Amino acid sequence: MSSQNAIGVFDSGLGGLSAVKEFMRLLPNEKIVYFGDTGRVPYGTRSRETIKKYATQDAAFLMRHGVKMVVAACGTVSSVAGELLESSLPVPYTGVVNPTAYTAVRVTKNGRIGVIGTAATVGSHSYKLRIQRLMPEAQVFEQACPLFVSLVENGIIHRDDQITRLVVRRYMAQLKENGVDTVILGCTHFPLLREAISDYMGEGVTLVDSGYETALYAAKVLRERGLLSDSTETQSPSFYVSDTPEGFESVAGLFLGRDMEHTVTQIDIEAY
Amino acid sequence: MSSQNAIGVFDSGLGGLSAVKEFMRLLPNEKIVYFGDTGRVPYGTRSRETIKKYATQDAAFLMRHGVKMVVAACGTVSSVAGELLESSLPVPYTGVVNPTAYTAVRVTKNGRIGVIGTAATVGSHSYKLRIQRLMPEAQVFEQACPLFVSLVENGIIHRDDQITRLVVRRYMAQLKENGVDTVILGCTHFPLLREAISDYMGEGVTLVDSGYETALYAAKVLRERGLLSDSTETQSPSFYVSDTPEGFESVAGLFLGRDMEHTVTQIDIEAY
Repeated sequence: MSSQNAIGVFDSGLGGLSAVKEFMRLLPNEKIVYFGDTGRVPYGTRSRETIKKYATQDAAFLMRHGVKMVVAACGTVSSVAGELLESSLPVPYTGVVNPTAYTAVRVTKNGRIGVIGTAATVGSHSYKLRIQRLMPEAQVFEQACPLFVSLVENGIIHRDDQITRLVVRRYMAQLKENGVDTVILGCTHFPLLREAISDYMGEGVTLVDSGYETALYAAKVLRERGLLSDSTETQSPSFYVSDTPEGFESVAGLFLGRDMEHTVTQIDIEAY
Repeated sequence: MSSQNAIGVFDSGLGGLSAVKEFMRLLPNEKIVYFGDTGRVPYGTRSRETIKKYATQDAAFLMRHGVKMVVAACGTVSSVAGELLESSLPVPYTGVVNPTAYTAVRVTKNGRIGVIGTAATVGSHSYKLRIQRLMPEAQVFEQACPLFVSLVENGIIHRDDQITRLVVRRYMAQLKENGVDTVILGCTHFPLLREAISDYMGEGVTLVDSGYETALYAAKVLRERGLLSDSTETQSPSFYVSDTPEGFESVAGLFLGRDMEHTVTQIDIEAY
């Protein structure tokens, strides 16, 4: 494995781009290969068995590019297929659960931590189990927010949008009542709702962004293993998707804050 | 082709069950084979190319069961892949667009017809084109309602739910302002929001249910071609899905109004 190889990042769709954005900021000289499974998104409402099958195909696609590390920038994949990927891949792997749980434990003051994610993520209790291993006295409150992904993918994300505010309140009311001081945004789509969530939860509550924490952690792993690139040139990521690029390019612009036109390639993920 | 063969019905997921329910009521002695592509739902946000590929696989699966007719009980498939299926299948085919457009034209009094559906359905203008062929003076107003599918699949459908009411108003306000007297529910999920839509649009507006109209039409086609079964026994449908059955069984109960436990089989649709 050469340090010149790319870092492979995948997600069920677009959410993982919030991690890619951090990679580009933290490690501008690293080549990133991103796969978004836009032909089969969302994963969060599917069964464990199907999520594992899809995640295995996604990682296999990245391995064909000779990546030096695989990052599942997806709360659902990390929660349901994380152990499977970690034990089967021949390169370092990280999902979003471990780095994010670690940060939440570090920042909480009252030991009351909220976790929001897809139905599959919350059903797996992945964050809760990890947090309680790190901090046995922590109290963890979990809430599935299945409509959040649809809100983000349809652009209904503004803090002043009445629908956004109502849906946020519907899902977050119990966490607020439970007095959490830290909330894990356990799905990489959720940072786009950060303002609306923060408005409702109040300033005293810290929101922990799983994409951001994961990029930080992956950079640390690569550094420790001597796998950081010694290139001095700024690299551009390569983007692959399983549906046609057009839809992806327009929404991806929202995540990355730049024009994505003609930078995305479609592949047949069912062949992996 | 024998009249004793089954009728094949498919949908991207659950919505087509609203048509199955009508088939069971209208044609209790017909065997129904249903496929719901729950491993790849939703179709309505995907590209035309991907929708055509998925629809072709879905129909190929039904053909393996020797069905005497294929029904795409899905607004998105009918709109995007209807011509492809009609020209390539060796048995009679119907989607939801033609039967539903026909009924809308028959019931409108003021010639102002609203069409609601997924982004793909509305982007195809399938209903509008069909209506204007049947009634050139009709005025058709189209509205994509991408969040409706998520509301239905998450059970946020009650007429008194504030989120349901707000989302309905967001999407339907322009149609109301345009003075439509008829609205096509152009996605087979939408009948579950019928009460909330009707509350907002008012009693003077007729809602046309695409699943119901399609079942009526398919029964007519089979009768005309002498393909109705002469069985006198009540048949039970067979259900196949591409994700695990558990999730499907519970929500399918909502659509069919009966216990579905242990009646559903998982298949690998990518093999077709």
